Amino acid sequence: MASVILFLTVVGAIFELTSAGVADNRVDTFGKQQNGSCDLPEALVKEIRGYQPIVNKIVDEIVNGEYAGRTWDSLAELVDTFGARVAGSEQLEKAIDYVVDKMQTDGLENVHTESATVPHWVRGYESAELVKPFRKNLPLLGLGSSVGTPRGGIIAEVLAVESFKEFETIPAEQVRGKIVVFSPVWESYGRTVVYRSQAASVASRKGAVAALVRSITPFSIGSPHTGQQHYQDDVKKIPVACITVEDAQMLLRKYRRGEQMEIHLEMADRPMDPVVSRNTIGELIGTTYTDTSVVVVSGHLDSWDVGVGAMDDGGGAMISWKALTYLKAMGLRPRRTIRAILWTGEEEGLYGGAAYKEAHKPQEQKEFNFFFESDIGTFEPRGLDFVGNADAECIFREIVKLMGPLNATEFETPTDGGPDISHWTTRGFPGASLLNKNEKYFWFHHSAGDTMAVEDPKNLDKCAALWAAAAYVVADLSISMPKDVQP
Amino acid sequence: MASVILFLTVVGAIFELTSAGVADNRVDTFGKQQNGSCDLPEALVKEIRGYQPIVNKIVDEIVNGEYAGRTWDSLAELVDTFGARVAGSEQLEKAIDYVVDKMQTDGLENVHTESATVPHWVRGYESAELVKPFRKNLPLLGLGSSVGTPRGGIIAEVLAVESFKEFETIPAEQVRGKIVVFSPVWESYGRTVVYRSQAASVASRKGAVAALVRSITPFSIGSPHTGQQHYQDDVKKIPVACITVEDAQMLLRKYRRGEQMEIHLEMADRPMDPVVSRNTIGELIGTTYTDTSVVVVSGHLDSWDVGVGAMDDGGGAMISWKALTYLKAMGLRPRRTIRAILWTGEEEGLYGGAAYKEAHKPQEQKEFNFFFESDIGTFEPRGLDFVGNADAECIFREIVKLMGPLNATEFETPTDGGPDISHWTTRGFPGASLLNKNEKYFWFHHSAGDTMAVEDPKNLDKCAALWAAAAYVVADLSISMPKDVQP
Repeated sequence: MASVILFLTVVGAIFELTSAGVADNRVDTFGKQQNGSCDLPEALVKEIRGYQPIVNKIVDEIVNGEYAGRTWDSLAELVDTFGARVAGSEQLEKAIDYVVDKMQTDGLENVHTESATVPHWVRGYESAELVKPFRKNLPLLGLGSSVGTPRGGIIAEVLAVESFKEFETIPAEQVRGKIVVFSPVWESYGRTVVYRSQAASVASRKGAVAALVRSITPFSIGSPHTGQQHYQDDVKKIPVACITVEDAQMLLRKYRRGEQMEIHLEMADRPMDPVVSRNTIGELIGTTYTDTSVVVVSGHLDSWDVGVGAMDDGGGAMISWKALTYLKAMGLRPRRTIRAILWTGEEEGLYGGAAYKEAHKPQEQKEFNFFFESDIGTFEPRGLDFVGNADAECIFREIVKLMGPLNATEFETPTDGGPDISHWTTRGFPGASLLNKNEKYFWFHHSAGDTMAVEDPKNLDKCAALWAAAAYVVADLSISMPKDVQP
Repeated sequence: MASVILFLTVVGAIFELTSAGVADNRVDTFGKQQNGSCDLPEALVKEIRGYQPIVNKIVDEIVNGEYAGRTWDSLAELVDTFGARVAGSEQLEKAIDYVVDKMQTDGLENVHTESATVPHWVRGYESAELVKPFRKNLPLLGLGSSVGTPRGGIIAEVLAVESFKEFETIPAEQVRGKIVVFSPVWESYGRTVVYRSQAASVASRKGAVAALVRSITPFSIGSPHTGQQHYQDDVKKIPVACITVEDAQMLLRKYRRGEQMEIHLEMADRPMDPVVSRNTIGELIGTTYTDTSVVVVSGHLDSWDVGVGAMDDGGGAMISWKALTYLKAMGLRPRRTIRAILWTGEEEGLYGGAAYKEAHKPQEQKEFNFFFESDIGTFEPRGLDFVGNADAECIFREIVKLMGPLNATEFETPTDGGPDISHWTTRGFPGASLLNKNEKYFWFHHSAGDTMAVEDPKNLDKCAALWAAAAYVVADLSISMPKDVQP
């Protein structure tokens, strides 16, 4: 298998680079077997297990020691000081300057930013009101990249459907000139979000004047949720927004009873020219390899423009930054460099990651060892979600077992390892995402509910500890993580 | 004890009225003993237990039979057709007309309305924005009876406190001209709601220009909650609104860090002159006592002006109405009259109940036997909350035991039996409220989240069945429920 051949090459190269070799070098019996079980060299297993005391110390100091509660406090200060940090906003750039300054104060090394061009879209006055058969305010949030309405808004008849499939059966002449309401049943984020991203294009193709979509959440207390949408190339751009779950369901019921309804929709949202933002970087430079084989820990600093982005993704950005802060303060410096990257422009389509990938592409094979990303909540940690080849998986399984003191030893293998790091993990670099008890994540996601009220100090401590401990072990191991990178 | 004396009088009177007497008439050993246990006559216990087949039939037909799902459908039609039904609104009066019409269609008897004067307060344009140190929209809902701001709003510095106790320590000269934010910790609704009702008066007394209060809920997804507030007589009326839990907490943290903050607050809310609304009444007239010893089942038809009042109190109103509809359709007519009352003007201070009490006061001792009220959710039923004297309690405990088929046999004794019926229960009339699994009630209460999404068809069936069964048994018993009514 290609993965095995590449793995052997990588292992060979690493063994030349490091003096701290694995005692048993029988690489032909290494890693994952065809029957799915792992057969790592005993010495490597022993080496990994040897990190248990260091992991215990990291966990204890972050969760119970002098750092306890500090991650929550730091996150609160960040989001309370700058609020929402949407791409293109002054608040995001101010927050980046603040992080650079604070990373330096924390003693992080090589603190700097790297440019990334990001979309710029500005929410203006937004209002939707059912005006017939009775007046009812319909809370809404325009979707990223949506055009606005003419000044004063539009008033149009409502056509409501549950699904794209149902919409397909409706002739264009019945759609023309109407506001189409899509009220899909929640299945999962992955399956349902297509209504947010495609509703405008689907409705416009049949002549609708606007599209309103049920917010992409399984549970609501009357709050709309925003998010990015994409116009297909060949359609007229029409305004599109999410309304609440409750209102979408009501409009669909009323429509199915045959009621005539009209909505007055006004949106002063404005797509603007792209602007240059910055990824924010700080390091804990390794003792042995100072510019190769970097272990990345990351989250995105930008957010949507509602709520304050404490959960998406202030928490992930903060644990990535503070993992380095705490390791440095504890005097723990691994052999490889750990690099915290706080991505920019994630919400509009992984723009920060894309720019970083392009800039680092020439040396990426040498430069990167492993990518961590936390962008799906920092609730109570459960373990780690891994992506990479079978051999790396065997090594990483052993590392996750060290997280017993956090009761976070679950190991899963999804199809990718997180949004921004998918720029690398989809091409064969190994990576991991933070598995956490995020069953309620989408309740708050992209809404006014994404605030510090979602974040718990003890859980943030545990996430930061898991992040610091896992990154430390990967960065300090005698061998690099195997990878199968496509050229 | 006064209760025993009155009880004996009542029992005697009832025994004269009814031919279907209790076989064992040893009233001196009747009811609750001093040790707290009950000692009902065997024949009465036997009589109550004899209702089990009828209760089973009621439950089965409503939960599994042809009525299954109809209560939810009827409630959806009501709230989808009229939306919110705030006192003084055209929508409330239209909903009352609709209910009168539908009650007649359902075959209810003596369908009519009775006037009640209610407050009239109209929400206008409302906006709050943090304008310093950065701009952030602060979703808000003005509180019932609040005055507005001058046109264009006010901009003022923020002073934030956690409690009235903390506010007491702040000298008036530091408060004057400021917007005071109260961000109390949620304890319970009863303990925390004082911040909503009193914040304006407390802040105004020290010269504040407005008050903003953390919404009265234990959990939030960025939605503000409204509710009534009361100006004390001797204070200047200042605008008052609830903001979200999340924003109140953020403003308090920022204030405690010493940040200078300013809020631009605009509220075009208008207190208006009181108007005449109506309580809505329908009956199932008893076979034996046609105008005395009425069993009331009730909920309020009015709501706040946000959300659609499906939970508060569309569900309670609907099960009260439909309990009679289903009993009539099943051909079950008890000895006493069951009267459904859908109160008006509850939200502003129990105005519908107060008007009804005054109008019926001359004959109330003869007229009323028992009061049911459902105004704390129609989630899965658990049982009934009883208020009344010790003797009535013993009888009612036996009745609740009949609700086994609904798994709803819990019996509790609170200090009152519900808001509107407290006009009677606080004076010695017996009553009961629907105990249900309403742990999340305040998540939705008085917010945009109070919609059909909160209501579950099966649970509404169960609540309607419990309501119909309990009302039937109380109304059909050979004796009236004992009471200790103060003159």
